[in-house]
Amino acid sequence: MSRIAYVNGRYLPMRGATIHIEDRGYQFADGVYEVCEVRGGRLIDERRHLARLQRSLAELRIRVPMSLAALGVVLREVIAKNRVGYGIVYLQVTRGVARRDHAFPAPEVAPSVVVTARALDRARNEALAGKGIAVVSVPDNRWGRVDIKSIGLLPNVLARQAAIEQGARDAWFVDKDGAVTEGAATNAWIVTPAGTVVTRPADHAILRGITRSVLFDVIKAQGLRLEERPFTLAEAYAAREAFGTAASQIVLPVISIDGRTIGDGKPGPVAMALRREFHRYAEAG
Amino acid sequence: MSRIAYVNGRYLPMRGATIHIEDRGYQFADGVYEVCEVRGGRLIDERRHLARLQRSLAELRIRVPMSLAALGVVLREVIAKNRVGYGIVYLQVTRGVARRDHAFPAPEVAPSVVVTARALDRARNEALAGKGIAVVSVPDNRWGRVDIKSIGLLPNVLARQAAIEQGARDAWFVDKDGAVTEGAATNAWIVTPAGTVVTRPADHAILRGITRSVLFDVIKAQGLRLEERPFTLAEAYAAREAFGTAASQIVLPVISIDGRTIGDGKPGPVAMALRREFHRYAEAG
Repeated sequence: MSRIAYVNGRYLPMRGATIHIEDRGYQFADGVYEVCEVRGGRLIDERRHLARLQRSLAELRIRVPMSLAALGVVLREVIAKNRVGYGIVYLQVTRGVARRDHAFPAPEVAPSVVVTARALDRARNEALAGKGIAVVSVPDNRWGRVDIKSIGLLPNVLARQAAIEQGARDAWFVDKDGAVTEGAATNAWIVTPAGTVVTRPADHAILRGITRSVLFDVIKAQGLRLEERPFTLAEAYAAREAFGTAASQIVLPVISIDGRTIGDGKPGPVAMALRREFHRYAEAG
Repeated sequence: MSRIAYVNGRYLPMRGATIHIEDRGYQFADGVYEVCEVRGGRLIDERRHLARLQRSLAELRIRVPMSLAALGVVLREVIAKNRVGYGIVYLQVTRGVARRDHAFPAPEVAPSVVVTARALDRARNEALAGKGIAVVSVPDNRWGRVDIKSIGLLPNVLARQAAIEQGARDAWFVDKDGAVTEGAATNAWIVTPAGTVVTRPADHAILRGITRSVLFDVIKAQGLRLEERPFTLAEAYAAREAFGTAASQIVLPVISIDGRTIGDGKPGPVAMALRREFHRYAEAG
């Protein structure tokens, strides 16, 4: 089946899905995006994703291109047209098309909207989680507002590529103080030797992950102790467990960081329990 | 006359000039660009621009899409097809089209190449230089490798927009130590009360401007004293002159910074002399 994309009001075969070369997303990374999980053809956490999209757009003063309800309809239509049961839907909004000039176009132009969807292999994702992944640390050299989910992802691209070339699967960014900020496309978590779950507070140095927010409730429901505070790379090396979270991966156990084994080198019980609970939450809808 | 763009091997009317929605330039800002000045239909500093393009591509490990000689032919063809006498040519190269995944596509895909050109109003540019511009300072919150001329320009967009909303024309970035790094799309210079021309060294915190490099020779030929060192915003406020340089603007005098008058509030003699000399250099070819 050929894939279908939504591009500025039209549903197009993927092959012919194009945007103008003077789209500000292409010339300036002047746009934002969301990736939502799809289960049983249903969007997980639609409300939270659209609220975050709205926040990102507001931070950049890009107009919300249509009502959030209408955006939801488009997302579901793209999911349906691509017959995605389990997978992800990708939504990108840019400031629109205008002759190249750094300043915002005046008068304002219509934002560009692109939506795609694709199936993921659930069995493969579960197998990956059951095995756990290796991560490497890289210096966090990104801009100061990564809380805005912008398409300016070049540092993330380079970090992820560095990880892969070192035989790892993800990269964790480390700031000037030696603290882990987040992964290249995940939020970063550890479980301390005392059993406390730790993740960095949502400042301007990390993205407010939707899975991260949902996990807070799951952690409380599990009766686990949670600390929202910066943690160092050294602390992560010595952690009992480590894991990453993202809409497309849920809770993904980390079994080594920079070649150092975390805990006993197997996915930890806390991470796996949280993953199971997240599955339950998502399926309960 | 309708404008013509070069897109991946074809010369297209601007209206129909499109790239795929999964171009990595659109989803990740995974690409680089150059802007060259055009005079009498001729490229200024072609060799230096293509050398810098090559360096940017090498830093990101994007393949050079064709020989630099062939790229030069495309640039000149776009200039000719758009009948640009005085103006700019814009060249963008991205890592190409691939299903969205942060890591580099494997196997490698062909890079995307886009070239556009447009005329500028020389009389208007000269009038602007003769009047001088106001700039405002903004905190430099960009990523750590702005020496790579990437299309990830969102912080520059926001800085330039902030300037315009404050009635200024450009923004100067200031780092954590209070030193000016560069403008939103210009290199930043001052002339000290003692008459020394000062600009920041080309580290990872600024772009190695072509006009900046050329100006070094011009400054020496003029017998002026040059210091390549960081300067603070306070030093800029107290400077005798200030100016910005860029391929599209050459030497543009700055007459106020954050509302404080620089020198006597008129374009300074050093800046104007350097501008005249740069014109002579460019016209001599």
